[in-house]
Amino acid sequence: MTETEQTERSSARMNAFFDHVRVVLVGTIHSGNIGSTARAMKNMGLHRLYLVDPVEFPSREASYMSVSASDLLDTAVVVPTMMDAVGDCALVIGTSARERKIQLPTARPREMAERCVQRFEGQEIALVFGREDSGLNNEEMRLCHLHVHVPTSENYSSLNLSAAVQLLVYELRIAALDHLDQANDGPVWDSPLATAEGLERYYKHLEETLIEVGFLNPAAPRQLMARLRRLYGRIELDQMELNILRGMLTEIQKTIRGERNT
Amino acid sequence: MTETEQTERSSARMNAFFDHVRVVLVGTIHSGNIGSTARAMKNMGLHRLYLVDPVEFPSREASYMSVSASDLLDTAVVVPTMMDAVGDCALVIGTSARERKIQLPTARPREMAERCVQRFEGQEIALVFGREDSGLNNEEMRLCHLHVHVPTSENYSSLNLSAAVQLLVYELRIAALDHLDQANDGPVWDSPLATAEGLERYYKHLEETLIEVGFLNPAAPRQLMARLRRLYGRIELDQMELNILRGMLTEIQKTIRGERNT
Repeated sequence: MTETEQTERSSARMNAFFDHVRVVLVGTIHSGNIGSTARAMKNMGLHRLYLVDPVEFPSREASYMSVSASDLLDTAVVVPTMMDAVGDCALVIGTSARERKIQLPTARPREMAERCVQRFEGQEIALVFGREDSGLNNEEMRLCHLHVHVPTSENYSSLNLSAAVQLLVYELRIAALDHLDQANDGPVWDSPLATAEGLERYYKHLEETLIEVGFLNPAAPRQLMARLRRLYGRIELDQMELNILRGMLTEIQKTIRGERNT
Repeated sequence: MTETEQTERSSARMNAFFDHVRVVLVGTIHSGNIGSTARAMKNMGLHRLYLVDPVEFPSREASYMSVSASDLLDTAVVVPTMMDAVGDCALVIGTSARERKIQLPTARPREMAERCVQRFEGQEIALVFGREDSGLNNEEMRLCHLHVHVPTSENYSSLNLSAAVQLLVYELRIAALDHLDQANDGPVWDSPLATAEGLERYYKHLEETLIEVGFLNPAAPRQLMARLRRLYGRIELDQMELNILRGMLTEIQKTIRGERNT
């Protein structure tokens, strides 16, 4: 498709939304995919690219495939682990297609995009894409709050990595054009949302407490923490709520340990 | 993105719709784009590819980029002019982005897809993509009934050819899933949802426990239970999750009361 004058101008509000959205590529094997991801992002108005432990970067192939989006490669943030890339995010969206024992909440790309725009405007959002051959591992998958599934054909379901990025950032742009470009202001939540790091601290605290009360046997944990992560991960907890949940655990521990001075 | 079992089955009606849709590439310069177009089509359930006067075809690069969609290259129809490729079509959709003196009706990809599915089911439809550098010429453009415009960013509007194909055939698949495939319900949750009564019992149990651990003062309850209701109320808890939460409270109470026989 050729250059066009008939593009869509982004409003200031839309640009501000995109300032808070990052694309995270985890363990990318083919550096050409990093370049075509950068191009797909810039075509749709996104600019923040994170690379978790890429096999080769910087690379000539990535620069070549990015065409006129090499500025996104220049400003890409390279980090060793996925937690480094998403720790401060309120919404972490995973796109690995592997089936899991415990199902994460799953959305189509369109629902995902609507949710990002309508509920998470101004919050940090990460769109995470796994390795070309094996996707995200279980530990990485656990950091996601939502799983996006592109409804591909049963005859050939394996999307190219940058094609998957293209579809998701396109849906995000369409949702932003539809919702943020009008003066239409949605309801605003009354407290900032919890971050992925804050949630991780809560899960750790919860696990300790459940061991103390004998509900969780560390020798045979089964799927308990995974189920609780799925449960709390989909609430979109705000920071005040997270403080309440942490406070409850602290009081339970004090009572059990006889540390209460009542 | 990896292979997935969680694909979407196409209904017979949807497959019949796709049997009448062709993708037409006009004067494609880079044969790799022919291959990635084939992959994008097959990922979305399409299979009819027409090539108008391609610069190089068959080609090794096209086969390589098609990955597991080389069957679409084997059955591709190569013709000398665009008229040969679209002459029998009821709807010819052009995607060249160059401005014209006489403007065609223009649609976004989503509107285009809705229109194809709702008005042209069973009719022959052609999605036509021009040359990478110069798009469709005026004579080719005149054969189109509708012009599709992808709302790219004003900072970088030039989409890769196969990325444009990917977006349009994706929209076609989503519209087909939404309208032609009513039997196809979204992903099913693995346990029935909790009832309102079950939730009320949980809130009562939670309140008791919070009083026992001294986190909730019945004389000055403030907004604590209201906040916790808002929190748990929006999770759409399933019954197994509710059982886990109730079980946690029971173990906490036993521990506090010294009723545990460990």
